[in-house]
Amino acid sequence: MAEKIGIPRGTRDFLPEVVRRRQFIFSTLREAFQQFGYEPLETPAMELLSVLTGKYGEEGDRLIFKILNSGDFKKGTTAEVWESNSATHLSSVICEKALRYDLTVPFARVVATHKNQLVFPFRRYQIQPVWRADNPQKGRYREFYQCDADVVGTNALFVDAELVKLYDYALQKLGLQNFTIHINHRGILGGIAEAIGTPDRLIELCSTLDKLDKIGKPEVLQELRSRSFTEANLQKLQPLLELSGDTNLLLAQLNTLIGNTSEGRRGINELREVLDYLRDFKLNSNHISFSPMLARGLNYYTGCIFEVTASGVSIGSIGGGGRYDNLTGVFGTPGISGVGISFGADRIYDVLTELNLFPEKLSQTTQILVVNFEAASLPNQISLLNTLREAGFSAEMFPDSLKLAKQFSYADKKHIPYTCIIGEQERKSNTVVIKNLETGSQEIILQESVVGYFQEALFHG
Amino acid sequence: MAEKIGIPRGTRDFLPEVVRRRQFIFSTLREAFQQFGYEPLETPAMELLSVLTGKYGEEGDRLIFKILNSGDFKKGTTAEVWESNSATHLSSVICEKALRYDLTVPFARVVATHKNQLVFPFRRYQIQPVWRADNPQKGRYREFYQCDADVVGTNALFVDAELVKLYDYALQKLGLQNFTIHINHRGILGGIAEAIGTPDRLIELCSTLDKLDKIGKPEVLQELRSRSFTEANLQKLQPLLELSGDTNLLLAQLNTLIGNTSEGRRGINELREVLDYLRDFKLNSNHISFSPMLARGLNYYTGCIFEVTASGVSIGSIGGGGRYDNLTGVFGTPGISGVGISFGADRIYDVLTELNLFPEKLSQTTQILVVNFEAASLPNQISLLNTLREAGFSAEMFPDSLKLAKQFSYADKKHIPYTCIIGEQERKSNTVVIKNLETGSQEIILQESVVGYFQEALFHG
Repeated sequence: MAEKIGIPRGTRDFLPEVVRRRQFIFSTLREAFQQFGYEPLETPAMELLSVLTGKYGEEGDRLIFKILNSGDFKKGTTAEVWESNSATHLSSVICEKALRYDLTVPFARVVATHKNQLVFPFRRYQIQPVWRADNPQKGRYREFYQCDADVVGTNALFVDAELVKLYDYALQKLGLQNFTIHINHRGILGGIAEAIGTPDRLIELCSTLDKLDKIGKPEVLQELRSRSFTEANLQKLQPLLELSGDTNLLLAQLNTLIGNTSEGRRGINELREVLDYLRDFKLNSNHISFSPMLARGLNYYTGCIFEVTASGVSIGSIGGGGRYDNLTGVFGTPGISGVGISFGADRIYDVLTELNLFPEKLSQTTQILVVNFEAASLPNQISLLNTLREAGFSAEMFPDSLKLAKQFSYADKKHIPYTCIIGEQERKSNTVVIKNLETGSQEIILQESVVGYFQEALFHG
Repeated sequence: MAEKIGIPRGTRDFLPEVVRRRQFIFSTLREAFQQFGYEPLETPAMELLSVLTGKYGEEGDRLIFKILNSGDFKKGTTAEVWESNSATHLSSVICEKALRYDLTVPFARVVATHKNQLVFPFRRYQIQPVWRADNPQKGRYREFYQCDADVVGTNALFVDAELVKLYDYALQKLGLQNFTIHINHRGILGGIAEAIGTPDRLIELCSTLDKLDKIGKPEVLQELRSRSFTEANLQKLQPLLELSGDTNLLLAQLNTLIGNTSEGRRGINELREVLDYLRDFKLNSNHISFSPMLARGLNYYTGCIFEVTASGVSIGSIGGGGRYDNLTGVFGTPGISGVGISFGADRIYDVLTELNLFPEKLSQTTQILVVNFEAASLPNQISLLNTLREAGFSAEMFPDSLKLAKQFSYADKKHIPYTCIIGEQERKSNTVVIKNLETGSQEIILQESVVGYFQEALFHG
């Protein structure tokens, strides 16, 4: 009897065409990372639960997938323990391992434990799946890939700018032209909080300000009132909600409004330096936007903050990052600061699909099908197969000697552009019949010229 | 206070140099698979526990890592259930998901559920990690990669031969020259069991015969006696333990001894056909060996059986595979047969390391370090960095303006072969000082000639 088959909620099977597109994203990012001097790191899918717990807030802790201890996990745990403990506590008794929740904590663990084997400043990239027991919905999965690039061991703002350049470089290599890298600095937000008289309510204030573009000024004020910010606070906030103009103008206005706060000054000065480097990097100014209300990752970012959005699609953010002061402190190695960015591969996939930007060649698989024509030609067919593969082509022979129509239909379904046939006549004359399945045209070529023919047709065509 | 940090037993962190070597293995295999017309498939790390249970035998079931249900896993499970059930049964109550144990069961599940979206015969490859709660030891990990290539939906023996060719092709691309692909057929083993009068004790018999090379004839006979095979059985087995000679000779002897059994005849005929194809494929005969006692995977293989060993190292098998009759029957889709091979990436890594066969370039990371020389040169340095990356080189600038000796030492540790310096003089004359860190030689080049210089030095050097 057939059993129930399916896959866990929020996970996906990736069939060939989708894998090829995903591989295109991963290999393009990998190449960009390497061109920028980043080195690859990989960590286990499983981490010790104790390493992950407490790093992602209470909500995060609940979303960590825990792995049941193998063998007799009940050992030493009585029914009383079972009965008297919450699921959360009990899980830490019967599970000592858990699935990776992000790539940052494992990276911090590696830097803390292997620091003597690493060369600092250490530029690392990491492309691996992570797992979260989130409620699945459109664009949100329980297994998804993160693609992170971080530099640790330097405070130089040049690196912050370079990561913006890396976003720009990699996204263009992926074929995206219309995107915006939003830049802000925690100091700007801190300066605003200070200037309006609520320096200790930074996160509350900023999570509301972050919605300014979406909900508009009156709603923002309303929300702040309901969070019991005073009218005096809001009075001082008013001019900050009126900011407008290009980056230089924004910075000048901010300098007037918050330049006298220590955080504000720090933010303005550091942003100016980063923007100078970006000018040297000749970054297309349409791709960057100084967004003084951008507030993400305020729990850990201490300097620059980045967020990337694609234009012309309604797919939220496709990446984000920022600078953090103290990556490895929690693992007993204080004083290592860094800056990093993350590409959301699944979101980028959706954007490239929606904008039809994947290279067409990704739907092609095998380049040449050697038709299984007749038993007497088998040695010649296999020899041709050898020759084509040795020359670097992707080639296959149909395994069974079925009717030509069936074999052509197979080639068609697999988007194979060319077929080769060797029959009795061709064997005698050392030739091959080559058929282009797209145009239907057919040519007879000497066997010794086949490689040259396909080099012309497939590599330079 | 620093917390305990570490990683789960049997798992590994892969630092950059190791990842680059592993990437070399994966990308070489991927390329070989694609050249042979195989298409990529990826499945989730988590499968439903019910999909995995019962597929790997009792021992296998115990080694499956189970994932605790998220949220309140205790819900609906009383203390009595906890107390009165074994860990095994309880785990199926509180865990509905588990980590992938191999790539074959997920592949079968995909073929059964997505068969209408696949083109048959379906050639698929899959390179992903699997997890087993095995006792870790040298060369055995709890997280390791499998690299599988399978063809389903055809009984053509051409495909069995082609997979042997694929082993040969891919291993040579990896730089291995001395290896043996052992070939056998279940029919040979069945014929032997039949010929000695124990057709129903195939697996028992063969697991002993498989040790012939290792423990020798007397021990094999002794073990069979202890398993209560009769003297009459052993009498008939004697000539089969004396087989010798090349493949043709072996087949001729086997034909005499077991050619009158139906299984033996099937095995001999099919092997002959496969060997004919291998001759057409011009396979180096030193790389293949007909091994009539080779018995692996008899629980599922029904036709050809393969196993690969590397010479000159004591690292057991680096791959194996075979033909199976009924891949997807257990998922309600009978009648789909296939044949597949697997590359043991971790073992191959060990072999290439031991034989020092990894390409030297894998220890190189960034190709060119732009020295952070002085503030006034920053725009020129960043511009040079842009130029080098746009031209396809891997280049980085040292982020801080430290002493030259420190920057050179960084380049040295990262195996960066070249540095570029732009100082005041170079700015004025539009030149760059290029230093080759291996030879210590130094040249002054016009900035406009830098790309050409490195194309010569790095791509054609």
